[in-house]
Amino acid sequence: MTKPGNAVLLISCPDKEGIIAAVTALLSRLGANILFIDQYVDHENKMFFMRVEWELEHFKITNDEFRVIFTHEAANKYSMNWELYLTEKKQRMAIFVSKYAHCFFDLLGSWRTGDLNVDIPVIVSNHETLREDAQRFGIEFIHLPVTAANREEMAIEQMKILEKHEIDFVVLARYMQIIPPSMIEAYPNRIINIHHSFLPAFAGAKPYHQAYTRGVKIIGATGHYVTEDLDEGPIIEQDIERVNHTYSVEDLVKTGQDIEKRVLTRAIKHHVERRVLAYNNRTVVFQ
Amino acid sequence: MTKPGNAVLLISCPDKEGIIAAVTALLSRLGANILFIDQYVDHENKMFFMRVEWELEHFKITNDEFRVIFTHEAANKYSMNWELYLTEKKQRMAIFVSKYAHCFFDLLGSWRTGDLNVDIPVIVSNHETLREDAQRFGIEFIHLPVTAANREEMAIEQMKILEKHEIDFVVLARYMQIIPPSMIEAYPNRIINIHHSFLPAFAGAKPYHQAYTRGVKIIGATGHYVTEDLDEGPIIEQDIERVNHTYSVEDLVKTGQDIEKRVLTRAIKHHVERRVLAYNNRTVVFQ
Amino acid sequence: MTKPGNAVLLISCPDKEGIIAAVTALLSRLGANILFIDQYVDHENKMFFMRVEWELEHFKITNDEFRVIFTHEAANKYSMNWELYLTEKKQRMAIFVSKYAHCFFDLLGSWRTGDLNVDIPVIVSNHETLREDAQRFGIEFIHLPVTAANREEMAIEQMKILEKHEIDFVVLARYMQIIPPSMIEAYPNRIINIHHSFLPAFAGAKPYHQAYTRGVKIIGATGHYVTEDLDEGPIIEQDIERVNHTYSVEDLVKTGQDIEKRVLTRAIKHHVERRVLAYNNRTVVFQ
Amino acid sequence: MTKPGNAVLLISCPDKEGIIAAVTALLSRLGANILFIDQYVDHENKMFFMRVEWELEHFKITNDEFRVIFTHEAANKYSMNWELYLTEKKQRMAIFVSKYAHCFFDLLGSWRTGDLNVDIPVIVSNHETLREDAQRFGIEFIHLPVTAANREEMAIEQMKILEKHEIDFVVLARYMQIIPPSMIEAYPNRIINIHHSFLPAFAGAKPYHQAYTRGVKIIGATGHYVTEDLDEGPIIEQDIERVNHTYSVEDLVKTGQDIEKRVLTRAIKHHVERRVLAYNNRTVVFQ
Repeated sequence: MTKPGNAVLLISCPDKEGIIAAVTALLSRLGANILFIDQYVDHENKMFFMRVEWELEHFKITNDEFRVIFTHEAANKYSMNWELYLTEKKQRMAIFVSKYAHCFFDLLGSWRTGDLNVDIPVIVSNHETLREDAQRFGIEFIHLPVTAANREEMAIEQMKILEKHEIDFVVLARYMQIIPPSMIEAYPNRIINIHHSFLPAFAGAKPYHQAYTRGVKIIGATGHYVTEDLDEGPIIEQDIERVNHTYSVEDLVKTGQDIEKRVLTRAIKHHVERRVLAYNNRTVVFQ
Repeated sequence: MTKPGNAVLLISCPDKEGIIAAVTALLSRLGANILFIDQYVDHENKMFFMRVEWELEHFKITNDEFRVIFTHEAANKYSMNWELYLTEKKQRMAIFVSKYAHCFFDLLGSWRTGDLNVDIPVIVSNHETLREDAQRFGIEFIHLPVTAANREEMAIEQMKILEKHEIDFVVLARYMQIIPPSMIEAYPNRIINIHHSFLPAFAGAKPYHQAYTRGVKIIGATGHYVTEDLDEGPIIEQDIERVNHTYSVEDLVKTGQDIEKRVLTRAIKHHVERRVLAYNNRTVVFQ
Repeated sequence: MTKPGNAVLLISCPDKEGIIAAVTALLSRLGANILFIDQYVDHENKMFFMRVEWELEHFKITNDEFRVIFTHEAANKYSMNWELYLTEKKQRMAIFVSKYAHCFFDLLGSWRTGDLNVDIPVIVSNHETLREDAQRFGIEFIHLPVTAANREEMAIEQMKILEKHEIDFVVLARYMQIIPPSMIEAYPNRIINIHHSFLPAFAGAKPYHQAYTRGVKIIGATGHYVTEDLDEGPIIEQDIERVNHTYSVEDLVKTGQDIEKRVLTRAIKHHVERRVLAYNNRTVVFQ
Repeated sequence: MTKPGNAVLLISCPDKEGIIAAVTALLSRLGANILFIDQYVDHENKMFFMRVEWELEHFKITNDEFRVIFTHEAANKYSMNWELYLTEKKQRMAIFVSKYAHCFFDLLGSWRTGDLNVDIPVIVSNHETLREDAQRFGIEFIHLPVTAANREEMAIEQMKILEKHEIDFVVLARYMQIIPPSMIEAYPNRIINIHHSFLPAFAGAKPYHQAYTRGVKIIGATGHYVTEDLDEGPIIEQDIERVNHTYSVEDLVKTGQDIEKRVLTRAIKHHVERRVLAYNNRTVVFQ
């Protein structure tokens, strides 16, 4: 039977001798045509991380059979945290957005060109501003007027929407609202935010104003998983641009928006391609 | 009378003593509230370049009167090439596109968010591929099946379209077709192309394949004015990304498309904000 | 009389109409062959900044005469802070260093090749470590065992050394000791420090350890003038390198040292070429 | 017996199933504490590349015994090209230099700080210019007045010097002379050159003049292995800086020299740490 697509196996466990040999030998035995192997050892914390991607075409067993075999022959032995992903199944991504549209348009453009390989069934916003633009792209747009006061209550509505649409992960495309702990717990390392500064510099509000006042010569943006500590979650991707004294706050904002676009889209791609493992508030991002 | 917007004056002339003093003194006398002055002297070629931007609100004379006064009191004296632009009037930009859509979507997104301050009355393509996407954004889409054989003939059609829509400048957003001399002459330094390499490296076809074969560790993209020498026109903007041996040709293409997007959009912004002066096949790009 | 070298005039004052015209007209009248003019207006604070560089060869008056004329005809009228520098006179730079030698060697190499156009009469250190290397380059090396306890007292010794050697400015090349207020007051905007992080991220001690723990994907370094607020002085130059999860703290340190070298040397060059104006804890750095 | 240092094994061979498992299983059996494993498959050319580094402290056999065992149990089976390196033994590097001293000083500074972990027994130059500076650092300096006419003859002298000093690899630190084929054959992928442009742009002479004329907005430098095709050898490392219209040729040269310094030193470090595998005129550079 010919099976389409690839399988990706992500592993983290305490570092021990022989893990790579065990995993690759097992996969070879099962007929996997391995395309990519990446591993990393955090010697300080004695932790082992691995990503293996193989073609399913000549794989001899079903994925469920693999799960059983892998659990018994490798995962239990090495106390692994592990997940198996199938590239055939597109991930379902929800966009949360406010009024700023630069990341929103970049995501939709990347999605339409196929560069971002996801389904986008729904866009949620606390403003009506982008309804028409969402609909241009044929995507359902839901307006939920979230405020600091009704945040928890609205999160219940938001999570209903996510469940209904079988959302795999959420992207905060300059959403400008705090995500309550209930939702963060429900989507651990599955909510990606773009912060408009080079964290940890200028966390919190108005980072471009802060950057102007401090007189920095470089500004940046940070894509990270959302945790309960605001702007403190594991960083997936960052990038920067050089600026100078002639940049007004408005110029910094415009320059920064270009950085935000590319950093957010890259962070999402890393996530979608199953290249990211988060631990100790840091990320391993396999190339 | 309150006048809206700003005026931008672009000057190039042989370098002589006293030009800056003469221009700024004249503008002061006429009530210009000067916002930005930039000048550059090419000492090797003894050429002087200047960009002045001022608020029109309290300017004492009309723009036509200014043209007369400036010609008599400054331009003639210093043998200036000069142009006066009014920011109030949006420039009209046509997009030529083929099948690759990454730059196309970036331009439309930047236009919709107001980041790119132009009107886009028409999109011309040698393929039907992007008709629906152009129309989503409410922009007229015209399909002209250009080939190497009918290029000159089709250029006549294309120029009719440009004239009808009163197009100020044309953007080749990965258009993949050669522009014939007749159109280049009609739009000197007003056709902007994105080349998918860091020129002059990898001019011509398939630059990402060339980059792969040569094993470069950095790839780039180049935004330039189109001249009759293919890929040889004055460079407006370039940018790069670091790559490595693990990048396949396809990976280089994907990485490169992100560079192309931002380089093209930046080059257009420089052009639209009247920051670019081309001479000797080089550009002065005032900040 | 033929005069060697160039003159550089640095001006800051409240923004008013006609300053550029006044300054350039005066210089033209006095026979200055102007090479570079740069100006910047901080519209928010209504402040004007200017740098003019001209050849002295055909300048009609002495520099002392210029000072008198400029004061009466321009500086007083516009309430200018201004300084006149002569490129003929090499500035005298002292290096303060501890045990880390990467910046030290980069400075001495740049000095020997002529890339850094200064005299370096003396190197001061709180350790003996680099005595021999300083002497290789024929530079006097003075060991002052500074500690947190004797800092103020030692500063008196240090300032005697600076005075004796007629030092124009001091470079802290990873000096690792706090400079007391008495010295900072004596050398305002004339002590340049390299901080081993992308400020304001990771101010204070052990920035590379902080960067590791936070899991940033980019690290940097910052060259700034020293003020009484530690790591808070006006930033002259910053640069960065991309890192990833595989970098240990030691790898971050090694990568960071390369950034520190180039950022410090660049910051010094900007200072030496009289391109830097500090105000409101920010810098204008003319190109 | 406690053995000092690490071992690095570099492998390239046709890609086959099970290589990683075979190598890692063998090393585990022999008591290797593996620190780093990196591998890469060139799917297009079906080639496999691997770098393994392990601690020798608890390794059960001698390196000679390892060579025998590895040949029989792995290398022959998979038709491997392979080399075993011991980090304990410092590599011996010769510097060839002309008059430009910026790379020369950067190498010596990096060597003195221990950042560049090599011995430098000899410096060879076609000029006397840097004799004194070489001797400051206690390194033998040999002047051989090479010209285009006596190049081949002088190469015999040069190779005698390299042999006498048991040189492992040669660095051309802006040497400005062509290396004849006889020396290139004797030191395959062991002569590292810095070219002062972002290759393949501006190969050949006077790249900064070429860059000025072409009006590029970014300049770069390239570290590569020397092959018989001038400026065409496998690229190890490249880097760039942004420039603009205000840069004279001299400014490009100065900016470029900073890039050359860091690119050359990085390329050498990659080589010294045995991270580089060259094939098909490209390089695999393991991180």
